[in-house]
Formats: sequence, C-alpha cells, structure tokens
Amino acid sequence: PPPPSPLIVGPGDDAAVFAPERGALQVLTTDALVEGIHFDRRFSSLADVGYRAIAVNVSDVAAMGAHPEYVLLSLVLPAGWTIDDLDALLDGALEAASEYRVAVAGGNVSRSPGPLVVDATATGSVRPRKLLRRDGGRPGDALYVTGTIGAAAAGLGWLRANGPTDAQSHAAANLVRRYLRPVARVRMGMLLGRNKAASACMDLSDGLADAVRQVAEASGTGALIDAAALPIDPAARDWFTEHGLDPVRAALTGGDDYELLFAVPRRFRGRLRHVQRAARGLQVTRIGELTAERTIRMMRDGVEVALPEGYSHF
Amino acid sequence: PPPPSPLIVGPGDDAAVFAPERGALQVLTTDALVEGIHFDRRFSSLADVGYRAIAVNVSDVAAMGAHPEYVLLSLVLPAGWTIDDLDALLDGALEAASEYRVAVAGGNVSRSPGPLVVDATATGSVRPRKLLRRDGGRPGDALYVTGTIGAAAAGLGWLRANGPTDAQSHAAANLVRRYLRPVARVRMGMLLGRNKAASACMDLSDGLADAVRQVAEASGTGALIDAAALPIDPAARDWFTEHGLDPVRAALTGGDDYELLFAVPRRFRGRLRHVQRAARGLQVTRIGELTAERTIRMMRDGVEVALPEGYSHF
Repeated sequence: PPPPSPLIVGPGDDAAVFAPERGALQVLTTDALVEGIHFDRRFSSLADVGYRAIAVNVSDVAAMGAHPEYVLLSLVLPAGWTIDDLDALLDGALEAASEYRVAVAGGNVSRSPGPLVVDATATGSVRPRKLLRRDGGRPGDALYVTGTIGAAAAGLGWLRANGPTDAQSHAAANLVRRYLRPVARVRMGMLLGRNKAASACMDLSDGLADAVRQVAEASGTGALIDAAALPIDPAARDWFTEHGLDPVRAALTGGDDYELLFAVPRRFRGRLRHVQRAARGLQVTRIGELTAERTIRMMRDGVEVALPEGYSHF
Repeated sequence: PPPPSPLIVGPGDDAAVFAPERGALQVLTTDALVEGIHFDRRFSSLADVGYRAIAVNVSDVAAMGAHPEYVLLSLVLPAGWTIDDLDALLDGALEAASEYRVAVAGGNVSRSPGPLVVDATATGSVRPRKLLRRDGGRPGDALYVTGTIGAAAAGLGWLRANGPTDAQSHAAANLVRRYLRPVARVRMGMLLGRNKAASACMDLSDGLADAVRQVAEASGTGALIDAAALPIDPAARDWFTEHGLDPVRAALTGGDDYELLFAVPRRFRGRLRHVQRAARGLQVTRIGELTAERTIRMMRDGVEVALPEGYSHF
C-alpha cells in the first residue's frame, strides 16, 4: 500500500487537512467502543481498548478494498481519569496506527459522567474500479471467509470463565489474544479489490452469521452455508465443546472475528487463485454460496436448517 | 459553495465512499456531545442535540475556510431509548444537514449503560491556497470576530434560571434560540479563505477568551483585546447585568457562540472590506490585535488586565 500522503494540518487546529490521492475515492467509517457493551475493563487493558478502536475501523476500510490512511479519535473519558490512563489508551491506539500505517490526524477529548467511550473514524483511499461493495453478489457466487472463526468468542469466554489471569496454556493464550487484539485484513481487502475477484465483501465484526445475512440482503439473494466447511479455530472448537456449547453455532454467532466474508462469481475463480497465492499464507475457505431463493440456510449433517441469528454484545 | 459530489456508497455498507474534488484538500474533524457535560436534556430537545452535533462540526470545517460536504454520526444511546427518540434526534441532525448542505454519509449506533453521546465527524473540501489555519497570525495583525458574543451563554443562563418553559419576551426567546441552535459561519469562512484576507482563523466553540489564547499560542504571538470593542449581544449584556454578572467577563468566557475569530494583517485590510461587502450583513468587529510580547491581555477602562481564562462546561 502507498504510504499516506503527509498531513498538511495535524492535531491542534479546528480540523485535520490532507491531500487525497488524485483520482482515488475516499472511504469514511466510524465505530464506537463503549465500556460495558463492547469491552469489559476487567479483561481489556486500556491499551487493548485503544488498539481495538483503531483495528475495527481499519477493518471496515479494508472491507471496501481500500488502504487505510487516517484516523480521528474521539475520547469520552469517565470521572477520575488520569493522564496515565489516557497515555495507556493512546499507546495502544498508536501501536495499532503504526501497525496499519495510518496517521492519527486529530481528535477530541470530552469528559463524561458515564462509561468510557472510544469513538474512532477512519479514512481510506481506493481506485474506483477496485472498490468492494457489499451489494454486488449474485446467485451462484461462492462465499469465502478468511482465516478462522470462533477464536475471539472463545477467548472472551475463557476470560469470563477464568478472570483476568494469565492463560495457563499456549492455546488459551492464543484465544485470548485473538479476542484482545483483533487483526484487520487490510492486505487481503486490497488484493481482492485489485484483482477484482470478489463481487461483494464485508468484515465479520458482528459474526459470520450476521455477515452472511447482510451480504445476501444487500445483494438481493439468499445464502446456503455448509456447516462442515466452516473454518472453526481448532482450539476454539475444543473450548466450545468442553463448555457444552455447539461449536458451529458459537463460531457463527460469536463476534469480534474481523475476518472478511466475500463472494466470488464462478468466472472469477482464477482471479481468486491469484489472490490466494499473494495472500502470504492467509487461509481462505469456501463456506457456501449465494442463492436465488432468498432464504438464509445452512446444510448440517445432510439437513437444511436456518442459519442462527447474529451476535449480541455482552 | 459547490454542492457535495454525490455519495458513491452511502449508509449501509462497511464504510461510506465519495469522490473528492480534484485538486482540493480534504478537511476532517470530529466533536462529541455528551449528555450532562455539553447539554442538559431538560433544556435541549433531542432535535436540538442532533442539530447541534452537526452544526458544531460544520463550524470547525468552516473555520478552515472549507465547504462542508459529509457527516458521519456515531450515536451512543442510553438504556430505554425508543425509535421515537432516535427519530427526534435524527430529525434535528437532518435539519442541520439540509441547512448546511451536507450529506449524512453513514454512521453507527451503539447502546450504552451511560448517558447519551452524539459524536459527529464532518469532512470538507478546500483549495490549498484558501486554507485558513490557526497558526498564521503575526504581531500587528488585527483581530476580528463575527456576529455577537455572549448570547448563547445568556440563553443557557436563562434556561437554568427559568427552566424549560417558553421565554416570555422576544429578547429572551432569541437568547435561548442562540444557545439551542448554534449557527456555523460557513459563508464567512469560505469568503475569508477565498479572499485570502485572514492570516489565522478559528471558531469560538469554547468562548472568545479561549480562542484568542489558542490563536496567539499557535501563531507564537501574544494578544491585546479592547474590552470596549467587544460585540456583546445587547440582550445578553442586559441579562448578565440584571443577574449580577460582569458582561465582559461573561461574554468572553461563555461558550457555544460558534462565531469566527480571525487575524488580518494590515496590508490585507482592503481584502477584508471585500469580504465584509460580500458577507450579507454579518457584522465583523475589530476587537484587538496580536502582539510581539507573548502575553494575553485586555485593555479595560484604561488599564491593562489579564484576559479571563476560558470556559468550562457545566
């Protein structure tokens, strides 16, 4: 990705100012994290919260096929906050900004009588022909998902069951990390856009079941998912099973995965192979297809059932 | 102002997408309104809050000399909110969006265990040579402010004293309106940028005293204000006096005015006259000047005193 053009005016003026790339479209998204809804201070450090605020917005930019460029942070701080608290949150945000090569262009700090709210806005840049919308899927397009699903939900489950202690096993520590430090699939979004392999794309912020429903609805199609094909993280599958949960259901409805769901028309399978070769080992799994019949179903053990409903935050 | 380019992708996808004007810089700002800090639900209707969220962000864009184009709304809704509440808030936001000719490009809705938070992000577009920064002032530049000051603070004072009843007099109703429905000086910001009359500019969101301090600090100068020249709203002056407040101090430190403070080098006074002729009757008042000595002072009744400190939210 090209580095973002330098900021012409950064933090400290009425607004940030930058020069957009010539001929590129601008992508703009905002997403808030609310204490007690989207995170729990017992489990997430302030650095984790700052990191997540950047990553989830960058993920939305990536899901459009764009490269992320700038973020604004609007912080609503509860009573009793110290400069050290603010520094910890900003450390996490700046770590994510550096990882995703975005510049923190500005922001705003407010006090609040209520919980911490971290609202971030991200911008990105994309050539018109590389834009990945949500609504371009057609019946017969195959549905793919990147990486694995369920790990973040299992990691959160682990934290709830065990409290904020260090995970005893490597597998548990990895699940917890998948929850605390979501990874936005920026490179894959740009590859899909550049290779024009996908007819529709979105990120999984609210879980795969929700994403399938939204892509199908926006595209005016239905969808049929194959439960056996779902790339459920093996450690997450074990965790769900040990705790009496159905791994398929838990992985489909668990949030915080931030993988990409995308649709690929049959004639673009060759393009997808190019994308896969360039994806540096990121797994891409075919999980089903968009259908003409406008129902959202799942094939499981030879029986068609309704896809579970989406995710609700704790 | 040119109408904003149509949205290529509006609300409902991972992010909004628009095509920036060729050769124009992009301006980006965010500002949050928190219940109990920036507004009080006893005084401000939900439509007022929605209106204000747009207006204050548009004001920041205007203070850069840019024309506002898009807004994103991030709403953090307390428990018990109804669709009617949301509609009322959005009605006010859309009223402001229509008045300022900006498009609501997207947004986000979260639940919260705490107070209502309305966070808005606004974008604008400006030619590089028309950009108004905060830091370009030089010693000797005259300081000007648009409109009148103190009316919003008096309007809020009236509401606190009288409660949310209808104002009995035309004057009181006008003060209350100035508080509830701030006006962003979009046309004046663009005129100042286009005519290259101002060396520095910012809006008064946190009061004139705060703005003078910030422009001087960013510009590496001091400032000397003439108390007798301040364009204090006459009804606000009466209200402050009747309530035992010093009108000069109250008007300088009262927030929510959203006028523009700007600096004009001596050689650009002719340009300022062009701006004033084009300003459709908006008053512009010279209130002092930037100084080489880096102190922030006010001449009052023949004596130099320190400028009062800025505003704090209730």
